[in-house]
Amino acid sequence: MIVLAVLLLVVVLTCVPYLVTIAFAQGPADASPIFGVTVPEGYKQWELIAPAEEAAPLDELRAVVGNRTAIDAYQDNKLPFPDGTILVKRAWKRKQSPEFASATIPGEATTVQVMVKDSKKYASTGGWGFGRFINGKPVDEAQHRTCFACHEARVKSRDYVFTRLAP
Amino acid sequence: MIVLAVLLLVVVLTCVPYLVTIAFAQGPADASPIFGVTVPEGYKQWELIAPAEEAAPLDELRAVVGNRTAIDAYQDNKLPFPDGTILVKRAWKRKQSPEFASATIPGEATTVQVMVKDSKKYASTGGWGFGRFINGKPVDEAQHRTCFACHEARVKSRDYVFTRLAP
Repeated sequence: MIVLAVLLLVVVLTCVPYLVTIAFAQGPADASPIFGVTVPEGYKQWELIAPAEEAAPLDELRAVVGNRTAIDAYQDNKLPFPDGTILVKRAWKRKQSPEFASATIPGEATTVQVMVKDSKKYASTGGWGFGRFINGKPVDEAQHRTCFACHEARVKSRDYVFTRLAP
Repeated sequence: MIVLAVLLLVVVLTCVPYLVTIAFAQGPADASPIFGVTVPEGYKQWELIAPAEEAAPLDELRAVVGNRTAIDAYQDNKLPFPDGTILVKRAWKRKQSPEFASATIPGEATTVQVMVKDSKKYASTGGWGFGRFINGKPVDEAQHRTCFACHEARVKSRDYVFTRLAP
């Protein structure tokens, strides 16, 4: 009887770290530092806003997609973007097409970058929260400190958003 | 009485050209030669398959999107693509970003290119119908004669489709 009880206790205690891991899998561990932004569910199904290309050293192809709130705001030329707007930039290394000499296609995925509009929560950064993810994990706090400074310096007049809706 | 009848006749006859225009607006005039492919409704909302870049002289950024049937086939690595698959390639002139030196963004839209899978209707061209459109209007028959020959020469083993799903 005691042997069984001890065995049960060992089994339960062994499980604890795994249970904690599961509980936090989509929690704080996957949220960006400073902003607490996560990769939104189902973003790959979202509508395309525009593709882009980034020269070396990054040497990437990119595609920015947005949720319904984002697309509606773009189509109505509405600035600032309303709360609830989410923009996601997907990025891949540029890769030579194996079948067509003049074509460049997506290689390995590099980063996923997210902007979330919440004018109250992110009042000190133009109403935007930022997240930069590699393999689903946020990069460090130092990198996240650079997001708003760059957007503010270059596209403050466009509500801090670089990407325009492709015609 | 006769005056009224004549007036009515004039009004009706005046309307005929407009009625014909309306009736054919989404009809044969907007379908591609050879294949009768049209630009599908709502394709801008479709899910992204991959962006791409085309070097000079075309000098374009591109994005291929697909309907649900297409996306499902890609995700299941299903070849050949099932009937009902529709792929749409959007294309824009490459343009220097006004705000970021290393970034290239979409300029003016150039062509919209469509592939429709119907293994019976298009049996003689690998099961695919092709359409190339500029400003919503199909280009000429000579250009459409080149579609299948190129796809057949380069990607026959991939069910005649160049674009892979971006990772």
